[in-house]
Amino acid sequence: MKEATFTEKIQNRWSQVGMICVGLDPDFAEIPAVLKAENSSIEEVLFAFNREIIDATADLVCAYKPNIAFYEAHGEAGARALARTVAHIRDAYAEIPIILDAKRADIGNTNLYYVKAVFDELGADAITIHPYLGKEAVQPFLDRKDKGVIVLVKTSNSGGGEFQNLKVADSGEPLYKVVARNIANSWNANGNCSVVVGATYPEELAEVRTIIGDMPILIPGIGAQGGDIQKTVMAGKDSKGFGMIISASRSIIFASSGADFAQASRKATEGLVSEIQAVL
Amino acid sequence: MKEATFTEKIQNRWSQVGMICVGLDPDFAEIPAVLKAENSSIEEVLFAFNREIIDATADLVCAYKPNIAFYEAHGEAGARALARTVAHIRDAYAEIPIILDAKRADIGNTNLYYVKAVFDELGADAITIHPYLGKEAVQPFLDRKDKGVIVLVKTSNSGGGEFQNLKVADSGEPLYKVVARNIANSWNANGNCSVVVGATYPEELAEVRTIIGDMPILIPGIGAQGGDIQKTVMAGKDSKGFGMIISASRSIIFASSGADFAQASRKATEGLVSEIQAVL
Repeated sequence: MKEATFTEKIQNRWSQVGMICVGLDPDFAEIPAVLKAENSSIEEVLFAFNREIIDATADLVCAYKPNIAFYEAHGEAGARALARTVAHIRDAYAEIPIILDAKRADIGNTNLYYVKAVFDELGADAITIHPYLGKEAVQPFLDRKDKGVIVLVKTSNSGGGEFQNLKVADSGEPLYKVVARNIANSWNANGNCSVVVGATYPEELAEVRTIIGDMPILIPGIGAQGGDIQKTVMAGKDSKGFGMIISASRSIIFASSGADFAQASRKATEGLVSEIQAVL
Repeated sequence: MKEATFTEKIQNRWSQVGMICVGLDPDFAEIPAVLKAENSSIEEVLFAFNREIIDATADLVCAYKPNIAFYEAHGEAGARALARTVAHIRDAYAEIPIILDAKRADIGNTNLYYVKAVFDELGADAITIHPYLGKEAVQPFLDRKDKGVIVLVKTSNSGGGEFQNLKVADSGEPLYKVVARNIANSWNANGNCSVVVGATYPEELAEVRTIIGDMPILIPGIGAQGGDIQKTVMAGKDSKGFGMIISASRSIIFASSGADFAQASRKATEGLVSEIQAVL
């Protein structure tokens, strides 16, 4: 049987489960001591932590989103822990899409190798990318109809406006709106694009939703970064009441530093799911 | 003895050697058959290829620039080949700075892990980054006074103008000039920033040089991408006749597909060095 595309997977999860995505960002210093006592290597600690979080939350999430920086910081051990994490999700929960938060983008020739690394070697369903080099450069990502290409538009950080908010002369619009419009009107020819807008900017989120129609929006910044669920859902939902991949990381995966960390991550996820349902 | 900073290393190489940088982008399909016959694993082929290119060109170059995509495409084997390549340069040619062409950038908290991965684990002297998230996000890179932070400004690809050339309302200038100015006036407080401008855009290169003063410019796009050496040097040199890291990859490392590939890479590098000297 042909594997479902990223778009098919995420739409199934939205309708069957909800819109919460768990960011698998295993900051080693924050991982509960019990796991470090039980496992002898960094690779085993990272993987055991992720596996327990995944097994405790898999029926509640629309996607998992490992950020590759947290793995690369540990060299080969981190790379193996990431590969095993992706393999575990694919083996045990094949219906859940995996978004590799890697924020890549190079010139076209080079992106072919990122495509190979992320989609074919690792087996992720989607990747986050920077828009700065333009559509022509990232065409190798866009050509993969089976995968998701999630482009940074309005990022969650406090200083993200330095360039993203610059008004463009032609239309008087801020740059991030021009980026959103180009993605919707041109980059998304294969129907495999999504955009990133931080939950920390609900007004801008509503504006982007108006520009892009029912395209998916990946929304980081809930929880530790201070984004508000109610404002986010009201601003970001699509015409069917779906369309969002609402990502929380630290507030879920580090909900407890004790031996109950996995159950605590489940409770934190359930809390966010309830908050979203209360708004919809 | 304290290790020299990226800035010290590159300035020494400019005054003692020249301004050519070799891009270590070992596209596996292009690697000479002789190396594939002699070595039994992808890791060994990639590393043997790089080592021979390095040993043949080390007295001619100001820097080496491995692009990480070509290694990530091979998973763990690629990661080991990259680590061994960096270690070989550091061991045998400690005076030559290593630029990891990784085009990273995430929010601040996450960039701390890229800093650890690239500077501390791998041991690179500099990294290329995207500007889209603003200075506040990339502060963890900027804080490393000992390392180089090389920011994309005007990229070499044909479609790079999609956003980079958009005119900004305040000044009527294209975005890439605003990016260049912010880097020079604000991001470069520690004197460790450089910018990327493609050799395929010599007029824009001259404009950026005017904006940034004597900051270093990494200039890809020579050779296979069609950039012209004479125009590049005239447009890009700083007030002292230095200031450029002129990078060529395919035209040097794949100068021959035969057993003489290393000697051919040396000849190709010597050719570029002569071309530059003829202009200066």
